[in-house]
Amino acid sequence: MSTNGTTKQELDPNQGGDPNKKTYNKQATGEALKTAQSHSAEHDLKLYGSCFCPFVHRVWISLELKGLGYQYVEVDVYRKPKLLLDINPRGLVPALRHGDWGCYESTVLMEYLEDLQQGTALLPSDPKLRASSRLWSDHINRHIIPAFYKYLQAQEPDDQVKFAGELKGHISKAVDAADPEGPFFLGKDMTFVDVQLAPWIVRLEKVLKPYRGWPDPDPGSRWEKWVRAVEASEPVKRTTSDDQLYLDSYERYAENRPNTSQVREAINSGGGLP
Amino acid sequence: MSTNGTTKQELDPNQGGDPNKKTYNKQATGEALKTAQSHSAEHDLKLYGSCFCPFVHRVWISLELKGLGYQYVEVDVYRKPKLLLDINPRGLVPALRHGDWGCYESTVLMEYLEDLQQGTALLPSDPKLRASSRLWSDHINRHIIPAFYKYLQAQEPDDQVKFAGELKGHISKAVDAADPEGPFFLGKDMTFVDVQLAPWIVRLEKVLKPYRGWPDPDPGSRWEKWVRAVEASEPVKRTTSDDQLYLDSYERYAENRPNTSQVREAINSGGGLP
Repeated sequence: MSTNGTTKQELDPNQGGDPNKKTYNKQATGEALKTAQSHSAEHDLKLYGSCFCPFVHRVWISLELKGLGYQYVEVDVYRKPKLLLDINPRGLVPALRHGDWGCYESTVLMEYLEDLQQGTALLPSDPKLRASSRLWSDHINRHIIPAFYKYLQAQEPDDQVKFAGELKGHISKAVDAADPEGPFFLGKDMTFVDVQLAPWIVRLEKVLKPYRGWPDPDPGSRWEKWVRAVEASEPVKRTTSDDQLYLDSYERYAENRPNTSQVREAINSGGGLP
Repeated sequence: MSTNGTTKQELDPNQGGDPNKKTYNKQATGEALKTAQSHSAEHDLKLYGSCFCPFVHRVWISLELKGLGYQYVEVDVYRKPKLLLDINPRGLVPALRHGDWGCYESTVLMEYLEDLQQGTALLPSDPKLRASSRLWSDHINRHIIPAFYKYLQAQEPDDQVKFAGELKGHISKAVDAADPEGPFFLGKDMTFVDVQLAPWIVRLEKVLKPYRGWPDPDPGSRWEKWVRAVEASEPVKRTTSDDQLYLDSYERYAENRPNTSQVREAINSGGGLP
């Protein structure tokens, strides 16, 4: 049975039966597509990812920043291949396969790449700075990211104002904890905390700004310095798609449509990240 | 003004104005008291903790397992000293001070102690086993612990049944991921994941069993083997108080009284851990 020339079978679950609704992209665009294509050859170290997913983006940036050899495998998260389910019974991306071993969860995977002790280190060698990096990574995971999604999914103006304030407050705490000169969290080099936050810095500009009017950083502020340094870094540029991909992929979040993702369901039910 | 011989000023906030209600203990008892007393001398490495707190318990077990020198400083979490607030503006325990530097969050602190590379290592050297340890630590933090508190705080029988099932399910996943022989998560030695879970293993027996009828592990099961090994380990025994301390300290959770803790508030509002 056909509606508007599209059969129902072809719609993604998150379109809610409406073929005019945007859905997630199934292939990177722009610089990210070039990078994906140049890492499509068979390799022992494989990143299973979806081009729009910020948690995947973290691991992808890490691989690029470290300069490791790897294979990027695009995965349609709503139609999970056995290859992914072998690694991760919940079928979440990102997942890494290294030889016949696999693992998942973006922060765990970033620590794994670090433990390989190949390429550029993301964590400093000083135990105190490593602890500080992990403490603020935890702040990003447990406070900044949930606030980002609550804000994006909020449909009522009062809720949007409230969650925008929460998000700003959580970002401010991280900025206050950063090296005063920067431009990155620990100083002149991009390290663990920057990579953990980078995908959401990209999405503040490409998603929250168009959908919710998220403001540019105050000119001359420490936050502006951080944002611009992350946006201008090569590993971030090489793994970021064109603007339209983010606009399309996040329409379902901005409209808080059912079947969007496990992140959406968890935030709507008041829980932490899945 | 006096009620039952106790002035109102002497009541703790979580007693809800009723002097007959139990409150948290302000000093360890039994083996844990002996350990606290033998670590009361001034030391460069200080653990700020509260005797009933399972997150503190993790770091305390780690220090004992590693065999490091340290000072244990008992903190009344409802009357936070400046010394603690200097380290952690949210005033949460556990907090570590090492010289003039300090940090908080139990998992971050366990990684910090590991990074000191002194005493017994809690994480194995193989990157894949380290990743697996962090993955299952994350499972404990995000699934097992919230389910523990939801179950303990649930007042309605239907909710208790539901949350008991959730808790069992989350524990089963960890057991399925453990080394088949054990007795610990990775095999014969107690490591990171065991320490992360140990305080809740202790409290299944000492809190959930008396307050909610939590059952003993099935005889001969892998779970029983794990539980008995953790309970019998010296670092756990040396940091565990007598049963009455846990009964008293957790009455407020079991009755879901206001002002109990940030963990309770977060769980009641459906959120993750604070």
